[in-house]
Amino acid sequence: MTETVYTVTGMTCQHCVASVTEEIGAIAGVSEVRVDLPTGAVTVVSAAELSDDAVRAAVDEAGYSLAER
Amino acid sequence: MTETVYTVTGMTCQHCVASVTEEIGAIAGVSEVRVDLPTGAVTVVSAAELSDDAVRAAVDEAGYSLAER
Repeated sequence: MTETVYTVTGMTCQHCVASVTEEIGAIAGVSEVRVDLPTGAVTVVSAAELSDDAVRAAVDEAGYSLAER
Repeated sequence: MTETVYTVTGMTCQHCVASVTEEIGAIAGVSEVRVDLPTGAVTVVSAAELSDDAVRAAVDEAGYSLAER
């Protein structure tokens, strides 16, 4: 399992958290998504390393932005 | 038709707006709900005057608060 922490900007409430969690959770191989709303830190547990593009696309789909790492 | 403007606190994003709109829109007699996110102003068009209690309960149900008028 791989655990990666991303930073997502623009989330303001638990609805935002739910949207991001749902979209990232739909990426193949993702088994867990944890979001810390105050910091925007999103921890993703996956079977294998994810491509940043896949994560970025999911975050965009939810209506938010992935910060550069 | 009666048009009343309430102030709802705690909304931060369009998901919040959607939740409040849905809950207030479910009150019997309500035909239109317009929300201005920056100010929290919620304009409700209804067939007859609504009770503040009904509106307060709907806003609470959505997870937000009705400001005192």
